[in-house]
Amino acid sequence: MAANDSFRPASPGSTAKPRAAGRGRSAVSEADDPSSLVVRFGPDKPLRLDSGVQLPELQIAYQTYGELNADRSNAILVCHALTGDQHVASLSPVTGKPGWWSDMVGSGKPIDTDRYFVICSNVVGGCLGTTGPASTNPTTDRVYGLDLPVITVRDMVRAQAMLIDHLGIDQLFCVAGGSLGGMQVLQWAVSYPERVFSAVPIATGARHSSQNIAFHEVGRQAIMADPDWRGGRYFDYGVSPRKGLAVARMAAHITYLSDEALHRKFGRNLQDRDTPTFGFDADFQIESYLRHQGVAFVERFDANSYLYMTRAMDYFDVAAQHGGRLANAFLGTKTRFCVVSFTSDWLFPTSENKAVVRALNAAGASVSFVEIETDRGHDAFLLDEPEMFATIRGFLSSAGEARGLR
Amino acid sequence: MAANDSFRPASPGSTAKPRAAGRGRSAVSEADDPSSLVVRFGPDKPLRLDSGVQLPELQIAYQTYGELNADRSNAILVCHALTGDQHVASLSPVTGKPGWWSDMVGSGKPIDTDRYFVICSNVVGGCLGTTGPASTNPTTDRVYGLDLPVITVRDMVRAQAMLIDHLGIDQLFCVAGGSLGGMQVLQWAVSYPERVFSAVPIATGARHSSQNIAFHEVGRQAIMADPDWRGGRYFDYGVSPRKGLAVARMAAHITYLSDEALHRKFGRNLQDRDTPTFGFDADFQIESYLRHQGVAFVERFDANSYLYMTRAMDYFDVAAQHGGRLANAFLGTKTRFCVVSFTSDWLFPTSENKAVVRALNAAGASVSFVEIETDRGHDAFLLDEPEMFATIRGFLSSAGEARGLR
Repeated sequence: MAANDSFRPASPGSTAKPRAAGRGRSAVSEADDPSSLVVRFGPDKPLRLDSGVQLPELQIAYQTYGELNADRSNAILVCHALTGDQHVASLSPVTGKPGWWSDMVGSGKPIDTDRYFVICSNVVGGCLGTTGPASTNPTTDRVYGLDLPVITVRDMVRAQAMLIDHLGIDQLFCVAGGSLGGMQVLQWAVSYPERVFSAVPIATGARHSSQNIAFHEVGRQAIMADPDWRGGRYFDYGVSPRKGLAVARMAAHITYLSDEALHRKFGRNLQDRDTPTFGFDADFQIESYLRHQGVAFVERFDANSYLYMTRAMDYFDVAAQHGGRLANAFLGTKTRFCVVSFTSDWLFPTSENKAVVRALNAAGASVSFVEIETDRGHDAFLLDEPEMFATIRGFLSSAGEARGLR
Repeated sequence: MAANDSFRPASPGSTAKPRAAGRGRSAVSEADDPSSLVVRFGPDKPLRLDSGVQLPELQIAYQTYGELNADRSNAILVCHALTGDQHVASLSPVTGKPGWWSDMVGSGKPIDTDRYFVICSNVVGGCLGTTGPASTNPTTDRVYGLDLPVITVRDMVRAQAMLIDHLGIDQLFCVAGGSLGGMQVLQWAVSYPERVFSAVPIATGARHSSQNIAFHEVGRQAIMADPDWRGGRYFDYGVSPRKGLAVARMAAHITYLSDEALHRKFGRNLQDRDTPTFGFDADFQIESYLRHQGVAFVERFDANSYLYMTRAMDYFDVAAQHGGRLANAFLGTKTRFCVVSFTSDWLFPTSENKAVVRALNAAGASVSFVEIETDRGHDAFLLDEPEMFATIRGFLSSAGEARGLR
């Protein structure tokens, strides 16, 4: 790991100590100075991007849970989804809420921090401390905004590999994640098969569908239509495209839930009233709920980062990386896979997950597949889903035996 | 039909001659002075609205095709959908394009204008000549904007009944329409059972689901987030919320198509290029297509009208009008129903259409039901769907015999 004295605060390749996380940190202040462990890489170790350009300097913010064993063989990399972050199982410094996968990761949990060393890094393009559009561009000393090159899922994984190198880990016992996290899992298995002993892609696919691209494009247009977006340079004006980002979140949020779950949770119930107002206020509970989702989201997420993260998902297409045949991506792999889908997920329906399973089978890979019956839609992977927990606990236990863990 | 001399241009209750339709009329100019037949009602015949208020003056713009027979027994009322208009089978004065149901309505077509007298009126709350938020408020002589009371589907149907009275027709041979048009069909059968000999609700439901309300709310928030919306008074400033309305249309448009159709039409194909740009331009064909849909829509539709029309759909709930039991709405009906749904319609899935069929069966009504296999989603009702055409042609022919038509 090379040093670069000109780089900011800590020296490159070094791991800075995290500040004590406290509620009320803004996403903006987290971007450069996160409440996380941090590793920085200098220009001698640039991140090569799929776009053909290089990021001369890279900061990765990450969290770890549990202890790395003496063999360095018990590490699990958790990959976060579109609006997730590295705070898997600890309080979010921005919202003060429990980590997004606290039900999955922790002492005695399916990803058991008494047994495994769990790592999660904010992805490149994110806004919680890893280099992203809200970070300061070291070349100009201004916020990157749209000057940051477009990032792909493969770029995110390439950066994670630099972190794993930095931590001195040759092979990850497991890489696990849902949605965009699942895409990273697949990309890890494809880019670094020898470094992934087992892989758990959940509620994901090997490509983003036309309908999924369409929903993302609506979100991006909503953000870019907001005059406070200012061509992506809103930081310079002390504003942010709050309304546009809220609309983007609202539209996306519908795709995370199922029609059945919405019907069960909200139906046509009115909010705090018995009769409709005959107006455009939030009469229905579902309207209040969506508005709340939109408003809460803008407090914790950077609008440009939303553009980059959605674009990365749109560009994701593993088969296209391998001559159009998905199975080619996995030929000769020794990684053990556990693919999990949910019956009511219409963003990454079982069919997309099964396409991965079919390709793995065609490549002769070891794969188990579980489709979980639930009405909670895509978001099920973030929720208390006992069958998912049991599946992953069992899979890790069996993979752990094969790996000789304890 | 009473007269009110103080009312604008033509006298109330009168039918004004349509101007020759010509391409390039704006939606705004159509609002007060449409290229259609027009009937106006004065304060002595106010439209009573579900919100409890009355519209003291009402203009209805409509088109007719074919000839009313001597018995006045061959009239078919076609009801248009959210962004449709009265120009069912004739050129749109705004876009210059053929009418939206030209494949269905015309000489020799399933709704055969050689046999039937076809009527379609712009709905109340619309923007093509029937009183809506883009119309001039006669009380203030300014554009209504949000001063127009909120309109329901029942209000739309009540206004249509005034038009049918005006045309001297006691009983409609048929009422037909899809989506919001299908809601109007159901409401006609419920509000005026004795005036509806047969009814063809297509791709619709007896209520708007929570997910559907959610998508509408996203569209409304996109419009209201646009600073050019100006609290609905954009007319006063010579602007309009074009970007917000385009985003609303883009989001809605995704729900009109199926995942399969998007995959078949666009897949992950790039637009006019071989490799991605690694930017936020419309790289994918689906993005270009959606952007085009958004931009084209703002040329022909009024943003406030979009708010009113979506709200009317959200409020629609036939069962709630009848003590919570849908079958009660149809008890004793003699109307013959033909319900049509499409396999890939996820906005009004077959299950919602079937709920109507079940209620009709429970009420002892005469009902036939056809689910048409297609991958074209909700929009199928507007497209060249031979099985839909054959179904409706056959149903009308048999109903026509029962009604003693020729």
